[in-house]
Amino acid sequence: MDGENNVNGNDALDIENEGSFDGRDIGRYPSEFSERNMTYTEPLLTKRTNTTSQIAIVGANLCPIESLDYEIFENEIFKQDWRSRKRIQIFQYLTLKWGFALLIGLGTGLAGFLSNISVENIAGFKLLLTTNLMYKHRYFEAFLAYAGINIGLAAAAGALCAFIAPAAAGSGIPEVKAYLNGVDAHSILAPSTLFVKICGSILGVSAGFVVGKEGPMVHTGACIASLLGQGGSRKYHLTWSWLRYFKNDRDRRDMITCGAAAGVAAAFRAPVGGVLFALEEAASWWRSALLWRTFFTTAVVAIVLRVGIQYCTLGRCGLFGEGGLIMYDVGGVRVTYSVEDIVGVLLLGAIGGILGSIYNYLVDKVIRMYSIINEKGPGYKITLVIAIALLTSCCSFGLPWFAKCLPCPADSTVSCPTDHKSGNYKSFQCPPGYYNDLASLFQTTNDDAIRNLFSPRTTKEFNISSLVVFFAAVYFLGICTYGIAIPSGLFIPVILAGAAYGRLAGRLFESVTKLDTGLFALLGAASFLGGTMRMTVSLCVILLELTNDLLLLPLVMLVLLVSKSVADSFNKGVYDQILKIKGLPYLEAHAEPYMRNLIARDVVSGPLITFSGIERVGNILHALRTTGHNGFPVIDEPPFTDAPELCGLVLRSHLLVLLKGKNFSKERVFIRRNMLQRISALDFAKAGSGKGIKLEDLDILEEEMDMYVDLHPITNASPYTVVETMSLAKAAILFRQLGLRHMCVVPKSQTRPPVVGILTRHDFMPEHIFGLYPDIKPHRWTE
Amino acid sequence: MDGENNVNGNDALDIENEGSFDGRDIGRYPSEFSERNMTYTEPLLTKRTNTTSQIAIVGANLCPIESLDYEIFENEIFKQDWRSRKRIQIFQYLTLKWGFALLIGLGTGLAGFLSNISVENIAGFKLLLTTNLMYKHRYFEAFLAYAGINIGLAAAAGALCAFIAPAAAGSGIPEVKAYLNGVDAHSILAPSTLFVKICGSILGVSAGFVVGKEGPMVHTGACIASLLGQGGSRKYHLTWSWLRYFKNDRDRRDMITCGAAAGVAAAFRAPVGGVLFALEEAASWWRSALLWRTFFTTAVVAIVLRVGIQYCTLGRCGLFGEGGLIMYDVGGVRVTYSVEDIVGVLLLGAIGGILGSIYNYLVDKVIRMYSIINEKGPGYKITLVIAIALLTSCCSFGLPWFAKCLPCPADSTVSCPTDHKSGNYKSFQCPPGYYNDLASLFQTTNDDAIRNLFSPRTTKEFNISSLVVFFAAVYFLGICTYGIAIPSGLFIPVILAGAAYGRLAGRLFESVTKLDTGLFALLGAASFLGGTMRMTVSLCVILLELTNDLLLLPLVMLVLLVSKSVADSFNKGVYDQILKIKGLPYLEAHAEPYMRNLIARDVVSGPLITFSGIERVGNILHALRTTGHNGFPVIDEPPFTDAPELCGLVLRSHLLVLLKGKNFSKERVFIRRNMLQRISALDFAKAGSGKGIKLEDLDILEEEMDMYVDLHPITNASPYTVVETMSLAKAAILFRQLGLRHMCVVPKSQTRPPVVGILTRHDFMPEHIFGLYPDIKPHRWTE
Repeated sequence: MDGENNVNGNDALDIENEGSFDGRDIGRYPSEFSERNMTYTEPLLTKRTNTTSQIAIVGANLCPIESLDYEIFENEIFKQDWRSRKRIQIFQYLTLKWGFALLIGLGTGLAGFLSNISVENIAGFKLLLTTNLMYKHRYFEAFLAYAGINIGLAAAAGALCAFIAPAAAGSGIPEVKAYLNGVDAHSILAPSTLFVKICGSILGVSAGFVVGKEGPMVHTGACIASLLGQGGSRKYHLTWSWLRYFKNDRDRRDMITCGAAAGVAAAFRAPVGGVLFALEEAASWWRSALLWRTFFTTAVVAIVLRVGIQYCTLGRCGLFGEGGLIMYDVGGVRVTYSVEDIVGVLLLGAIGGILGSIYNYLVDKVIRMYSIINEKGPGYKITLVIAIALLTSCCSFGLPWFAKCLPCPADSTVSCPTDHKSGNYKSFQCPPGYYNDLASLFQTTNDDAIRNLFSPRTTKEFNISSLVVFFAAVYFLGICTYGIAIPSGLFIPVILAGAAYGRLAGRLFESVTKLDTGLFALLGAASFLGGTMRMTVSLCVILLELTNDLLLLPLVMLVLLVSKSVADSFNKGVYDQILKIKGLPYLEAHAEPYMRNLIARDVVSGPLITFSGIERVGNILHALRTTGHNGFPVIDEPPFTDAPELCGLVLRSHLLVLLKGKNFSKERVFIRRNMLQRISALDFAKAGSGKGIKLEDLDILEEEMDMYVDLHPITNASPYTVVETMSLAKAAILFRQLGLRHMCVVPKSQTRPPVVGILTRHDFMPEHIFGLYPDIKPHRWTE
Repeated sequence: MDGENNVNGNDALDIENEGSFDGRDIGRYPSEFSERNMTYTEPLLTKRTNTTSQIAIVGANLCPIESLDYEIFENEIFKQDWRSRKRIQIFQYLTLKWGFALLIGLGTGLAGFLSNISVENIAGFKLLLTTNLMYKHRYFEAFLAYAGINIGLAAAAGALCAFIAPAAAGSGIPEVKAYLNGVDAHSILAPSTLFVKICGSILGVSAGFVVGKEGPMVHTGACIASLLGQGGSRKYHLTWSWLRYFKNDRDRRDMITCGAAAGVAAAFRAPVGGVLFALEEAASWWRSALLWRTFFTTAVVAIVLRVGIQYCTLGRCGLFGEGGLIMYDVGGVRVTYSVEDIVGVLLLGAIGGILGSIYNYLVDKVIRMYSIINEKGPGYKITLVIAIALLTSCCSFGLPWFAKCLPCPADSTVSCPTDHKSGNYKSFQCPPGYYNDLASLFQTTNDDAIRNLFSPRTTKEFNISSLVVFFAAVYFLGICTYGIAIPSGLFIPVILAGAAYGRLAGRLFESVTKLDTGLFALLGAASFLGGTMRMTVSLCVILLELTNDLLLLPLVMLVLLVSKSVADSFNKGVYDQILKIKGLPYLEAHAEPYMRNLIARDVVSGPLITFSGIERVGNILHALRTTGHNGFPVIDEPPFTDAPELCGLVLRSHLLVLLKGKNFSKERVFIRRNMLQRISALDFAKAGSGKGIKLEDLDILEEEMDMYVDLHPITNASPYTVVETMSLAKAAILFRQLGLRHMCVVPKSQTRPPVVGILTRHDFMPEHIFGLYPDIKPHRWTE
């Protein structure tokens, strides 16, 4: 897959790339194509089709690449606009920035609150109905009702995903991560995706799937931020001239970072955890100002949720009364531990890490398998969803029958059984005064099941056999569920399996440890999270904020460190795996060691298409039509300069605006002034995904084809450049650190044309480099 | 002050700079100096002396600048070395990396523990003695003992700072921040500084100064990391060949980042806060691998401290028994609030922000005043320290006399008075059954005073008048104390004043709010911290970890946001101010708006000195002797190439090693192979501060002066370059983001020499640019 394609919605796999391999024979388009060096051209062209696209098994679609380069302000036309900015406009800009952060926080907080309440009520209704039928011993009817509702909800979620927004399926975190890395996957932040993500997530979680709403919340936050950043809608006349300052990649990306942080904050009620998640996992570029702004956003989310909870404590939030926003409580446990406990905890972390990496491995395989089914059409997608829903229903209704009825504990402070509310003791088929421990885990929402597993001071509450069954069931159901066409977060399945594993370990170590089994469940969850997600600080803080007990910090840290280290020696984090499966050209922060032995020239590939400072309209149009390139070097030539000089870089989108404005002249002359009168800087502002001017929108007359247009006003006169002999590793670091989209490669020797190629994201992809140089062996060397 | 000076300990203000202004007439050194453009040269040269040096009022010393550029691996010689690395070496490298993180954590944790216990015991002894004399009504003797001990301790601390390590005075956070930005201030991380920092901090805090041990702990952590990173000592034959992989700027800087995080973790027992502090305040460059490693380091610190506390609960840690490592406890307070409370909290934050920025303003003035005294010599320094110690003693012993004796509360769970241990009720001059509330704050350690102010559920404990007196006293004592020659942290004075302010506000709002006064004290402290330090997330987390109550999060966030925003509209954060006063050339993360209107060529200044690929030894030696430049472009010329080409960049330190190795030849030929046999890559590893080969160490014979040396093996063949017409803002971003030390400016036109100048840190300093272009008006535009 080529990362550098046109934005015109062309869905074919465009395998051309910008830049020329060697540049020794660079001509002016279209008359002279560069003749390529024979040694490399042939394998290069045949390899090309097989490089990045081969790993793009699922959803290999075209992704316009974003740039953090301030190109927009470097063009003449924008420089003028920038200079004319008055103080008041800067004030507007800053106010808007904070206003947007506020809105993102409010929106995401409300979405989180809504999602929680809806799940609580829908799932609550289902569970109440089932319980009532169970009371009347109408077991088969109960199963039918339970499975029927589950399948209905699941089918609805699947249908939304399959027909309205396929991009809403899955966690959404990998896509947000890719966006923040510069890859704008197709319609990943569209309004329809937002709608389906929220509704589908509510339906999916209510349907009893082993999925969470955390990943979807992150995606929701990002979608809300993106919609705000696009600045209203022209269709509904909701535009605002102030917004034009936000129509650039940098501000949009900042806002989406805020959205991702807000999502985690809303999902876990963990504001600091949200900021750290955005920093550690989501964002590829970070500035200190962003820390400050994400923090504000998550603070708003925290306040919104707090207001919501205050409202719900009055009992107005439906069946379960508290809106599902209670935190997991392992507080009040006295945390004292000895050396043996530490050894036990280390072991727990190590095994958790291994199980986590196996989880990743299996999820990978399952997604690849499901993708074959899903690609056959919406019908297949929905069938798969229904099949998994049926499997889940059978497990969660069938397995509790194998558990023995346990007598209610005498010293319990809560009533037992707790059938009509959230609580640890579900009676299921048991007589009064007894409860079914497996049903307490299965016949409830995932959040409640986790809460039950975390519950402290109740060591004997769950039998070892029940915990084994539950652990095995959720471990495999979690794996089977990810990849079907519903919005499905990965946090909750992992926490659920991890908590069951931890509590099980706690029961097994019961005789030798003083640690509470609820605490063991928490540590188990931490070990699984560390083993699958591979985050550290953010997970630690999220878990602490969830449980509200800072004294657990050293133990949680220890477990996370061990499990991440162990798991890292087997495979990559689950989000990185999904990124790879989806074929998104994610750019790693560090350069690979083999890049040290290559130079920039080695990976640049042709043909390179350049424009003259004042270019024939026909040439431009032909170049735009026949290539998918997004950036073209502009070269000043005699008679305007003494020798050919690199003037800068023009973007396809800006060229389209320029051509639409028809600022043509019959002669090759500078015509800046005329142009500025016809086109304003506002027209060049970045349009929303798929909203910009398309090539088909242009209406160039035949006689205009031979006219000239001055490209200087829209040329970014300060493109980042590297010398062709620059080490590829250093070029990669430059490209990644500055968030570039194009990088000009200039010749070392002065006898050559002023630019020998363009490096794009595609050229740094390992698949591309290994395609060119099959002899290079990537040796693993991670930090 | 020139940021780019030689490393040879030359203490004069070297105002030369690398690079040439225009480069139109660049010659080969030493025969032809570039003739400079007349329009700019004259004002440039006269301006030069006045630029950065003018603000360097205090301690304007030379700072070698570090670089994150992987130059070391780009040289031929290192490339070979890199390729020959075996898997086992990579394993060694990784093991060592984690081993160092472990050692840094252990060292800093132990230092923190030691510091706490020592302060607790020394100050405890002093307070016990005073109390016993007060009991016997020997008030004057009590004052003499109290003031005498204080002055003695203060004089000792001052003498250590004045005679052994002047660099140990002050907080140390600005210096660490500068180091992590690439400025290695003189002996800031030397072993003597470490020793004085620890001892001086213990003495200073024990002497009753309004100073903290937090800043010094950060500095201590950084020193420990730096000493480890220098890899033992050749003097004591403690070298280890494995360590050579750490002898580069990047690994050393990573370790110092870990050290800074460990320092905060040790000072506040806040591991997550430490990581965030390193991220938000200390570090200028961040990589995700660093997050992971700092987290590990702070986890080790947390465990060390926990073991220490466990040990101390057995009563073996001296007078006060618990080693001063108790956290502030505001837990157990029910945090419910209404809209009026929120308004009150916002107001509290706003006023706190204003007071904080006034604090910064006054600290700035006081430091400038003190620096005039301190520069006169060690005697003056110590006298100043003694004067402030006397003032502090008078305040803390004299002011409590104005307070009325209050009856011990009847419902108190603790005994009253609490004279022989840490506690809220000091009797001072009061009869049994009564306590002096002002003495409870003054006649104790700063930590205990904060704990008393934070104490919940004791609204009436402190009178409003006492709080006013205490607030005024610590606010001004804190300002007077910073800048004297003792290690003095800023966190504790600010928290102390803020807590007094908050508790005062709590007493005043008593009738209208339901919030606890202890909580108000916490929020007051947060508002002051936000107003002076201007951190957000890290402060928030540190405060939460100090108080161990996550439910306070939304309020603390709110206060921090408000106070930082308010204070930011007046002046900069206190650490940035100190950096500026010290004249350290700190490079901001963002480019200033006026830089958009300049291009790289505009700020480059000459003369440029370049070397040929195979250069005369005499030329090199002369260049090294007559300039302070640290990097020299190497240019390949005919007959070796067709036209002059930029080959790369050599560093002064590498040239010195090369010259010392005497790999000379009589002819201008390539002699790579011979050289590699005589010098190993290990010799080029970065030496510790001031430990490298000096120019005087070279012993070049007269006949060798006319011989040639091949510079190619030590040339970094991939220097980062910018075209001369590149926007200065973009060049600055490139320079800062990649952590460069030198950046080559290449010509746009092909008819010019291959390099027209070098950009260094100095060239991006606002003072330099305003010196060149006095017409530019910097307009404030912060985010």
